[in-house]
Amino acid sequence: MNDFTFFSPTKFIFGREAIDALGGELSKRFFRKALIVYGGASAVKSGVLKRVKESLDANGVAYEEMGGVRPNPELQQVRAGIELLRSSKCDCLLPVGGGSVIDCAKAIAFGADYDGDVWDFFDGKAKITKCLPIAVVLTLPAAGSEGSASCVISNDAISAKRGVGADIIRPILAFMDPETTFSLPPYQTAAGVTDMIAHICERYFSGQGPALVTDALAASLIRTLIASAPKALADPRDYEARAAIMWAGTLAHNDLVGCGRASSAKTRAGGWESHALEHELSAIDPKITHGAGLAVVMPAWMRYVVDADPSRFIAFGRDVFGIAPADSSDESVKAAASETINRLQEFFVSMGMPRSLKEFGLEESSIDQLLDGLEKSKGKVFGAFKPLGREDARAIYKSAF
Amino acid sequence: MNDFTFFSPTKFIFGREAIDALGGELSKRFFRKALIVYGGASAVKSGVLKRVKESLDANGVAYEEMGGVRPNPELQQVRAGIELLRSSKCDCLLPVGGGSVIDCAKAIAFGADYDGDVWDFFDGKAKITKCLPIAVVLTLPAAGSEGSASCVISNDAISAKRGVGADIIRPILAFMDPETTFSLPPYQTAAGVTDMIAHICERYFSGQGPALVTDALAASLIRTLIASAPKALADPRDYEARAAIMWAGTLAHNDLVGCGRASSAKTRAGGWESHALEHELSAIDPKITHGAGLAVVMPAWMRYVVDADPSRFIAFGRDVFGIAPADSSDESVKAAASETINRLQEFFVSMGMPRSLKEFGLEESSIDQLLDGLEKSKGKVFGAFKPLGREDARAIYKSAF
Repeated sequence: MNDFTFFSPTKFIFGREAIDALGGELSKRFFRKALIVYGGASAVKSGVLKRVKESLDANGVAYEEMGGVRPNPELQQVRAGIELLRSSKCDCLLPVGGGSVIDCAKAIAFGADYDGDVWDFFDGKAKITKCLPIAVVLTLPAAGSEGSASCVISNDAISAKRGVGADIIRPILAFMDPETTFSLPPYQTAAGVTDMIAHICERYFSGQGPALVTDALAASLIRTLIASAPKALADPRDYEARAAIMWAGTLAHNDLVGCGRASSAKTRAGGWESHALEHELSAIDPKITHGAGLAVVMPAWMRYVVDADPSRFIAFGRDVFGIAPADSSDESVKAAASETINRLQEFFVSMGMPRSLKEFGLEESSIDQLLDGLEKSKGKVFGAFKPLGREDARAIYKSAF
Repeated sequence: MNDFTFFSPTKFIFGREAIDALGGELSKRFFRKALIVYGGASAVKSGVLKRVKESLDANGVAYEEMGGVRPNPELQQVRAGIELLRSSKCDCLLPVGGGSVIDCAKAIAFGADYDGDVWDFFDGKAKITKCLPIAVVLTLPAAGSEGSASCVISNDAISAKRGVGADIIRPILAFMDPETTFSLPPYQTAAGVTDMIAHICERYFSGQGPALVTDALAASLIRTLIASAPKALADPRDYEARAAIMWAGTLAHNDLVGCGRASSAKTRAGGWESHALEHELSAIDPKITHGAGLAVVMPAWMRYVVDADPSRFIAFGRDVFGIAPADSSDESVKAAASETINRLQEFFVSMGMPRSLKEFGLEESSIDQLLDGLEKSKGKVFGAFKPLGREDARAIYKSAF
C-alpha cells in the first residue's frame, strides 16, 4: 500500500428525514443566507425545492436562487452565479441536484473571493486557497461530488471541459434522501451507476501495487452496485436499492477507494484515462450524458491497456464477477481478463447504456477534434495504468465506434 | 437502510513518511504546544517518540510529556493529565500509542475545560460540549480510537470501566506508519485484530434491517483482516499485511460500517453487547487485554443470541467465510450459523487468543461481581440484537468458562 492522505470531512445526513435537518444544520453554523443552485424543473416538480425552502424558513436562514444549471455546467453560468452571490451577500452555497449543479456551486464558491476570472483555476493560472462553505442536497446520485474534492466545468467558447481538485472544496454537509431519487428516469439511473463504477475503476486501475483494504472495499462497492441497479430499474421506488446506489456513489468518489493507490500521499489515485476520454465527448456535444459516455469509452480503454498488466484485471474479475482463469497460461489469463471487460460492458448495456459512440450520433471524422481537445486538457501523454499518446487515444476512440 | 449520519472529519496521514509530516501539520494549524501522552517504554525504545519530537522541534511546536499510561487507562492518570495540561498551557493533545493512550488523551482533552471532575462525563452527570484538538500518532492498531467518537476509561476505585461518545472528540489528525507496528508482539497483534473484528460485528449484529453497502464493506474488511493477520504473525515485518491491519482497524471503528445499521440517525449502530461483557472483565482485572477478552466473550454471546435471527449469521457466514446452509431447513440453517460462529472463534484461537475465561485465571465464582458491574454500566436489560437481562448475561459468562 503506497502512502496516502485520506480526508473526507463532509457530514453526511442520509435517509428519509435528511432534508428536514437542513435548516437546523445551517443555522447552528451561523449561516445567514444561502445561494440555492439547481437545474431544471424537476427540483420544483418533485417538491424537493419546496421542502428545502421550508426548512430554511423554519430556521431563519434566508436564501437567493439560481436555477437552470445545465448538465455539463458551463462557465457563463458560474460567472453569473458569482455575480449573484456577491450582490446578494450569500454566505454559503446550497446546490440541490446532482454533480452538475454541485460542481457549478463549487466553482461559484471558490471563484467568489477571487479577483480574476474563475476559469483561471481550470487553466492552471490560479490555485484554490479559499472557498465558501457548500451544503449539498443530493437528488441525482452519480458524480459523487457531494463528498469529493473535485469540480468539472465546461467552457463552450473553447469547447473545453476541465476539472480541478482541492480538499477545501469538499462540501461541509450533504443531505441525501433516497426517496428523492425515486423519480429518476432509467437512463439517468443507469448513467449514474456507470459513473460510480468508473470512479472506482479509475482508482482501481491506477498502475500501483497492492492496497488490500482498498481493493476489497472497491470490489464490494461495485458488487453492491451491480446487484442494486437492476432492482432500481425494475422498481424505481425500491428504497433499499436506491439507498445502496446513493451511498455507494458517495463512497465511490470521496477517495476512500483511492487510499494507497496513488503514487504518493501527495497525488491523487489513478490516471483518470476514461474520464479524460469522455470529457472530450461532452465537450463537443454537451448533450452526451457523462455516464453514458463512460459506458462506451471505459471498456474501449480497458481493452486497449489490458496487456500492460492483465493480473490487475484478473483480480478485478475474481473479486467482482467470480471469474477465474482456467489455468495459469498466458492464453487463459488473457481470456479471463477479456471476459472480465466483456462482463462489465454487458452490465452497462443491460442497464440501457450505449455500446458504441455511433449511438450518440458521433462520426469517426470527429476523432481529430476529440484528440485536439484531449491534448489541450491532458498534454501529449497521459495515463497511469499505461501512458497514452495521441495515436493510442485515436485507437481507443476508433475502437469505440 | 435506516437513516444515518456519517461524519468522520479526521485527516488520516498514512504510510512510511507519516510521522515526518506531524510538525508541519500542527504548525500550519497554529498549535504552539502539544501535550505528548504515551504508555510504556516501547514508544521510547522504538524511536517513535524521538521522531515525533524531532518533527515538532523542526516546526517550532513546543511540547510537554506525560508517559506511563497503562492499558485500560485509569481515571487518576486522566486527572493528572488535566492538571499538567492546565499548568503547562498546552493547546492540543498528541497521544503516541494505541487505544489506551488515545482514550486517556481524549478524556484529558474534554476534561480540561470543565470545572467539575472528569468522571462526571462517564457517570452521565455532564455532557461533552468542548474538547481540545487531538492529533494521534498510532503505533498499536486495535481500538480504532484514532478515528472514533468514543473514549473508554477505567475507574479502579469503583471497579468500573465506562465509555462516552461525541463527534467533537474525534481526532483532527491521525499519523499512521505501519512500520511502527513491526515490533508489536504476536499477542498484541492478535488482540488488536480481534478488537477490530469485534467493532465490525457489534455493528453488523445490530438487530436492524438490511444496509447493503455497509454489510458488503463490513464483510470485506473482516475478510481482509482474516487474510492479513496470519501473514503479520508469520512475518512481523510484512508491510502490506501490517498496513492492511492498521487501515482496516480505523475503518472498523470510524462508523463507516455502522451506516444504516442504527435504529435512527441519532443513535449509534449496535448494542455493543460483547464490549459490555468484556469491559467487566478488564474492570475486575486490568491485566486482561481487551481484544483477548473479546475473543472469548464474543463467540459466547453469539451462541447465546443466534436463534433470535439466524439469517443474520447466515449472511455473515456466506460473505465472510463462504459458508452456505445445505438446504433451507431449520436444521441446516442452524448448523450453518453454528459453523460460522465456530469458524470465527477458531480464527481467534489460531492467532493465539484464549478460548475460555479460565485462561485469564478467572473463576466462575467471579460471575456475580461481573454481573453487578454490568448492571451498573448498562442497566437491568441491555443489547440490540436480543435484549439481555442479568440471567442471560450469567449464562453467557458461564458458557465462556
